[in-house]
Amino acid sequence: MNIDDMLAFAKAKGFFWQSAEIYGSAAGLFEYGHLGALLKRRFEAVWLNYFVDSGEDYYLIEGATMMPEKPLVASGHASRFNDILVGCSKCHTYYRADVLLAENKVTVSEGANAAEMDEAIKKNNVKCPKDKGTLLPAKSFNMMIDVSLGPEKADTGYLRPETAQSAYLNFFRQFNILRKKLPLGLAVIGKAYRNEISPRQGLYRMRELTQAELQLFFDPENWKLDLNTVTKKKMTVVPYQTKEAEQLTPIEVVAKYKIPEFYAYHMGLIYQFYTEVLKIPHEKLRFLEKGGDEKAFYNKVHMDIEVDVESWGGFKEVGGLHYRGDYDLTCHSKGSNQDLSVNIDGKKVMPNVLELSFGVDRNVWMLLDIFYKKEQERSVLKLPLALAPYQVAVFPLQKDATIEKESESLYKLLKKNFKTDFDSSGSIGRRYARMDEIGTPFCITVDYETVDSKAKGYGSVTIRKRDDKTQERIKVDDVVEYFSKAYGVV
Amino acid sequence: MNIDDMLAFAKAKGFFWQSAEIYGSAAGLFEYGHLGALLKRRFEAVWLNYFVDSGEDYYLIEGATMMPEKPLVASGHASRFNDILVGCSKCHTYYRADVLLAENKVTVSEGANAAEMDEAIKKNNVKCPKDKGTLLPAKSFNMMIDVSLGPEKADTGYLRPETAQSAYLNFFRQFNILRKKLPLGLAVIGKAYRNEISPRQGLYRMRELTQAELQLFFDPENWKLDLNTVTKKKMTVVPYQTKEAEQLTPIEVVAKYKIPEFYAYHMGLIYQFYTEVLKIPHEKLRFLEKGGDEKAFYNKVHMDIEVDVESWGGFKEVGGLHYRGDYDLTCHSKGSNQDLSVNIDGKKVMPNVLELSFGVDRNVWMLLDIFYKKEQERSVLKLPLALAPYQVAVFPLQKDATIEKESESLYKLLKKNFKTDFDSSGSIGRRYARMDEIGTPFCITVDYETVDSKAKGYGSVTIRKRDDKTQERIKVDDVVEYFSKAYGVV
Repeated sequence: MNIDDMLAFAKAKGFFWQSAEIYGSAAGLFEYGHLGALLKRRFEAVWLNYFVDSGEDYYLIEGATMMPEKPLVASGHASRFNDILVGCSKCHTYYRADVLLAENKVTVSEGANAAEMDEAIKKNNVKCPKDKGTLLPAKSFNMMIDVSLGPEKADTGYLRPETAQSAYLNFFRQFNILRKKLPLGLAVIGKAYRNEISPRQGLYRMRELTQAELQLFFDPENWKLDLNTVTKKKMTVVPYQTKEAEQLTPIEVVAKYKIPEFYAYHMGLIYQFYTEVLKIPHEKLRFLEKGGDEKAFYNKVHMDIEVDVESWGGFKEVGGLHYRGDYDLTCHSKGSNQDLSVNIDGKKVMPNVLELSFGVDRNVWMLLDIFYKKEQERSVLKLPLALAPYQVAVFPLQKDATIEKESESLYKLLKKNFKTDFDSSGSIGRRYARMDEIGTPFCITVDYETVDSKAKGYGSVTIRKRDDKTQERIKVDDVVEYFSKAYGVV
Repeated sequence: MNIDDMLAFAKAKGFFWQSAEIYGSAAGLFEYGHLGALLKRRFEAVWLNYFVDSGEDYYLIEGATMMPEKPLVASGHASRFNDILVGCSKCHTYYRADVLLAENKVTVSEGANAAEMDEAIKKNNVKCPKDKGTLLPAKSFNMMIDVSLGPEKADTGYLRPETAQSAYLNFFRQFNILRKKLPLGLAVIGKAYRNEISPRQGLYRMRELTQAELQLFFDPENWKLDLNTVTKKKMTVVPYQTKEAEQLTPIEVVAKYKIPEFYAYHMGLIYQFYTEVLKIPHEKLRFLEKGGDEKAFYNKVHMDIEVDVESWGGFKEVGGLHYRGDYDLTCHSKGSNQDLSVNIDGKKVMPNVLELSFGVDRNVWMLLDIFYKKEQERSVLKLPLALAPYQVAVFPLQKDATIEKESESLYKLLKKNFKTDFDSSGSIGRRYARMDEIGTPFCITVDYETVDSKAKGYGSVTIRKRDDKTQERIKVDDVVEYFSKAYGVV
């Protein structure tokens, strides 16, 4: 699939589409339909379960998305959260300078400033792609979206550019309410906002996005994690220096990259999450090390989590693992005039931060891309069970009052614990096909045999499995247990 | 509790507090801490389960919170979503005119315009409460928060003032993707934004709030609901005309108020949700009918859902039930030049809307207010089981390696399916007290008897119940089943 195929599929089935489409759509804004909302929530739930609920002293919090100006001045966003913009002198279309240069096969370093962009544009004679107009001088453009509050609109602020800031701003209170121990993890799942110059590639570059981020606050001198308790498999890592992919275990990463053990440990965790929970094939996942100008100056170690996504044309960033040092709490200590260091066993510690950051929308897109398969006779969305929007569908095979009644009561029973759909229209083949395409792992068919067997003291139904199309006959009384087992409910 | 008591409690325990507090706090913005985030999510989950998952053809969707200008011009928000504002000529403090008048015991109709407010202010000699300054002429003030997007900030829009608009804008696509049948329900749980002039009363009037809203689209000539399938209990209803509370069943409401049966049916559903799911006592819940200038002109029937909340000083709005006619889709048909009417069995229908609207933050506050009890020897948060932030806590009674090991393994087992806390510090009484105050319904104590009984082939633990403080001894092997039953898991 390419981007347009994916957008057409997502729109036709009810996953997502551009906002305000009856008004001609709004750039960079998307709506999740009934299936997209389910899939997005399932991703958030497995993420939460894997990274937060399984941790000791890791907690989910929720912060406001509007923030006053001061903390975002202190964090550096007001001055440094910029893209370099170039506009066409004729049609006044604007482009992100780095993206436009890349499209013209010109490479500049990721941290290039406006003057360097201008130089590269001039040297390579880059013009406006629309009308070949000369480009105006590049300029720095802050990507935060500002808001003005209060009766005189005098309280200026911003929509948060990342959920991370909610965790940093609440660290001190949470630390003191909780056990006053490090490490402490604060997770936020929520919206972040960026005035992207040219939003594009579906859910890749959005103006309103959902992030799932876990900020781990710790004492760098006292955080020992046992690398023997995390995956021992080799992961694909692309180093900044050579750009040549290599296969390394977390233990080998420590030795080779001279990075802290806690960092390699979390690479292992992330690897497990992608390959074991999300079932992404090993060869489609890699860590891309960022260095030099590519990484934010405050990051001590920075790797992007990349997945090979066909519709995006290759490996693309879906998350990141960032060792941010004590940058964040030091900034906010200065900005707020409040010392955010903590006392651990009599020692004063300015907590360091390890950030696990995931773009929820990007991961949703990635999952659809990876698991949507066109097979000989059908299209099927082979999502892992934990991510399937609908968990079960119930079909009455024939138009018959008794069958319909049985189906209805089974549907109502299952609905209490599983996300269940009901479909009585069209041929059974058509109904299977519909469920295959939206990823429903199991279909239950109620037929005359159900009614007959019920007369004999038990009722039986057919369960048909999405992935291998096999069917099995089980007793109605065993249905709930069957799915409890399949979905790992108590 | 009064408002300050509640804020102090919520802050001390980890429920919620004002945003950016290390920077001196931001008016009208709140953060949910680790317990608040849990409680808020539990409210959202029971709401979703009750109103959406239980319905036929009711779906949760998720829309962007930033919207272009056009739909909000079409919906009337750009011109009519106004409050009347008065400012002090001396100190330039601004007030909502109706609130200031109410505080001075002056009543004006809810729809009063600026001139009428001025008249009331003059007549009653109302001054600035801060410095007794003369008030400047009242003016209309639009409560939407505007955003400017794009490289030239030329794409103007707003943060959505209500989640409802996301449902209206997506109705047409969802109708066509789904079964092309009415009624169709579209629910949204998400943020809405309002530039409140004087945010106050904790989570009552916020600039960024969470709504849970269900929009039911239907054909008014063809929506029959059986009033015999909803509560037959008498509900408290306060009619617009007499303002005198009366006790009526949904069937009696239809007869007395001449309102549609589908409306009374949903009053019944809401009554059941509050009294049976949230366990709000009958006498603390009422429907307040709005009429005349009090209700939006497009609402055919409008009742506020009110709960008697001590810290807010009496009955306050926590939700509403609004029969909006075909106002919304008609507006958006005109605004978008796209006919949003649908074809049902050959008949052209402009769907009507029944809106079930709930303020999530207000309900969270209300729940804490209602269920926090100061008893003789303890403070206890007697939240219904379905709403308790933590479901179980595990305590090792003595400092003993075997006991600690047993506790750890029980904790890890329970954690897989229940939100479980672990506490090993302080006396057992102190630990119970901590759990009582945050509403944990069950505490499990592991002691020497656990270890001894395990040596005999079974292990036993003590389960202590929050509400009546009773204890019982059960086998470790039965613990999971015990809680599965208590929490209604399969």
